[in-house]
Amino acid sequence: MCRVSNAYGMPVVAVIGDGQLARMMQTEAIELGVETRVLAASEDASAAQVFGDVRLGDYTKLEDLRAIVDGADAVTFDHEHVPNKYAQLLIDEGVAVEPRPDALIYAQDKLEQRRRLSEAGLPVPAFAAIESAADAEAFWDGTGGQVCLKATRGGYDGHGVWFPSSRAECAELVEELLGRDLPLMAEKKIPFTRELSAMVARNRSGDVRAWPVVESRQDGGICRVAIAPAPGMSAELAARCEELAVRVAEGLGVTGVLAVELFEYVGDNGPEVSVNELAMRPHNTGHWTQDGCVTSQFEQHVRAVLDWPLGAVDKLSPATVMVNTLGGDEDPAVPMAERVVEVMRKYPQAKVHLYGKDHRPGRKMGHINVCADSVDDALAVAEDAAHYIIHATWKD
Amino acid sequence: MCRVSNAYGMPVVAVIGDGQLARMMQTEAIELGVETRVLAASEDASAAQVFGDVRLGDYTKLEDLRAIVDGADAVTFDHEHVPNKYAQLLIDEGVAVEPRPDALIYAQDKLEQRRRLSEAGLPVPAFAAIESAADAEAFWDGTGGQVCLKATRGGYDGHGVWFPSSRAECAELVEELLGRDLPLMAEKKIPFTRELSAMVARNRSGDVRAWPVVESRQDGGICRVAIAPAPGMSAELAARCEELAVRVAEGLGVTGVLAVELFEYVGDNGPEVSVNELAMRPHNTGHWTQDGCVTSQFEQHVRAVLDWPLGAVDKLSPATVMVNTLGGDEDPAVPMAERVVEVMRKYPQAKVHLYGKDHRPGRKMGHINVCADSVDDALAVAEDAAHYIIHATWKD
Repeated sequence: MCRVSNAYGMPVVAVIGDGQLARMMQTEAIELGVETRVLAASEDASAAQVFGDVRLGDYTKLEDLRAIVDGADAVTFDHEHVPNKYAQLLIDEGVAVEPRPDALIYAQDKLEQRRRLSEAGLPVPAFAAIESAADAEAFWDGTGGQVCLKATRGGYDGHGVWFPSSRAECAELVEELLGRDLPLMAEKKIPFTRELSAMVARNRSGDVRAWPVVESRQDGGICRVAIAPAPGMSAELAARCEELAVRVAEGLGVTGVLAVELFEYVGDNGPEVSVNELAMRPHNTGHWTQDGCVTSQFEQHVRAVLDWPLGAVDKLSPATVMVNTLGGDEDPAVPMAERVVEVMRKYPQAKVHLYGKDHRPGRKMGHINVCADSVDDALAVAEDAAHYIIHATWKD
Repeated sequence: MCRVSNAYGMPVVAVIGDGQLARMMQTEAIELGVETRVLAASEDASAAQVFGDVRLGDYTKLEDLRAIVDGADAVTFDHEHVPNKYAQLLIDEGVAVEPRPDALIYAQDKLEQRRRLSEAGLPVPAFAAIESAADAEAFWDGTGGQVCLKATRGGYDGHGVWFPSSRAECAELVEELLGRDLPLMAEKKIPFTRELSAMVARNRSGDVRAWPVVESRQDGGICRVAIAPAPGMSAELAARCEELAVRVAEGLGVTGVLAVELFEYVGDNGPEVSVNELAMRPHNTGHWTQDGCVTSQFEQHVRAVLDWPLGAVDKLSPATVMVNTLGGDEDPAVPMAERVVEVMRKYPQAKVHLYGKDHRPGRKMGHINVCADSVDDALAVAEDAAHYIIHATWKD
């Protein structure tokens, strides 16, 4: 039985979080006829601009959460920062919060995640909890100095990750970070050849679908490019990555969209992968699905959190490339609309997506999707188009 | 130079009209980062549910029109009923109203349209203004009784069209209709084999793009199915239809999306076409482009009314079929969401679009798009899926 709270026999979904991910869920919800509301920090937030029903509030306050979920058939997030105790309280009161905190914890706490994936036999780097400089020194010695330190909680887009260059620096850094009450872990650095992203969606009934695996290219820890499907990947490895992501989703009881970020490296018998990060929501490496797949990650997320059957994930084109339009160091004098016009004039096939955001260096302000017969063609167009949106100059 | 009124260097588009066409413009505007507002008759209207900025008002009142266009960079419609004198007044005051009344008149007044198309050498049926029963009798005699009577204004979805079965009935009907002050015209009935729709978009700078020609199937004067591309059509005839639509758009100075509804009939040298109706806005026969084309009619309309360059209109699939989910005679007891779930379970490839409307027999409540490798496959799925949405039973 579906829950059908609105006047048209359709459900109401409450989205907590006001960024571009919530904004892009809204475009899909509109087409599905699903009623929505958003809990936003301000009226000019990216998502708040485009929802009909905007509730201003603070997602760390129980009363604001209670207000937004009242009368909603499902509740979801565009980030992982809602306090789990409140999410659990709402679930105990009968609210369908998806994904649930008992899954979300593995996207929030990197150490818990490593332990759980490792126990399940899934490929993760060697890791250890770091509670003292001595722990760090031991891990340093055990890995021959291939150490990546991570805050177990709160990191994103390259924040909360450190690569100490000596044993002494490592120990000193750990002393300092622990002194700031930052819970820490260490991982063995993976000499990866590239980064991949395996995305799946799962609903509570267990329906699960995996999109084609993509190659993602980062810049300073921030996703900049996603290439679908990942070029030069064997069908065997692609299938292995998809199965891995499905196992993570099933093993952790994830509902909604799950991104499994992977390192690809050269193993003894050819390319191997190891899990880097998990995200339990639509993810930057899945934006290409808006224009490149039968069902986008945003539609799929809405369906999944409602426990609706999931949509087909077939590609619409041999290759699709997404390039982020990250705010440049300078905000060009040319207004955004004129940049968009120039891109549209040069590239009628480019799909421009903008989030309604002010310029800030490095900020995710939008993205360009391009479908083409080859990755090279799609990449060339998407890179040039994104360059113009960012700088108001062409690449060449 | 683009106009860029909002805080993010992007334009603001005001949409007059609160139906599903405005609603579907909104989903595309969100992705483009174009700010929108809608003039709606009520807060629960289809489009009013999904715009962040909803202004309640009456599109036949100048003060309400003035309020909605104030500060907007472009103004467009989801219907053709805004009084032309007001639209012209706003244009004279410097507002970018697209399409303009000097084009729109040819979608509003069927007699003016026939005269203009005929003068331009475009294929239309024999026609005449009907100002008396004698006019009608003369037209009856001249066409051997192949007479279709039309109200020159205000008809839609089969309303305002009559097919008298005898000369006497024709004369009597004309007397009655003229007595009700209905301006009339007559046309020679075309013994058409099927109906087609040739859709184009054009911006004020003259950029024009034609989507592949579709076959449309009507039921009681209401579009029920669109099949893209039109099956069994020669490349030569398809190109001729597209050129015809481009000529109409250019000749009439249309901006935004234009649908040219065509009759296909057996001519002396094979299939021929004749213009049936014009619509200057996104059109039901173009809904398939949402899932079947690089650029949908809704995105294209937004771009065109802003005088932005138009997007590529390539197909994403060999065949795409759209079937309307028109309200059935009875509203099934099964809630809409449960019908959607059953369709999604059986057909993961079906794209469900719903407009947030109450049930009413014959009402356009949503549509299903299906892409497939063949028309037969797409049609079978789309028909069955739409049947379930309407009746809560499968077709077979």
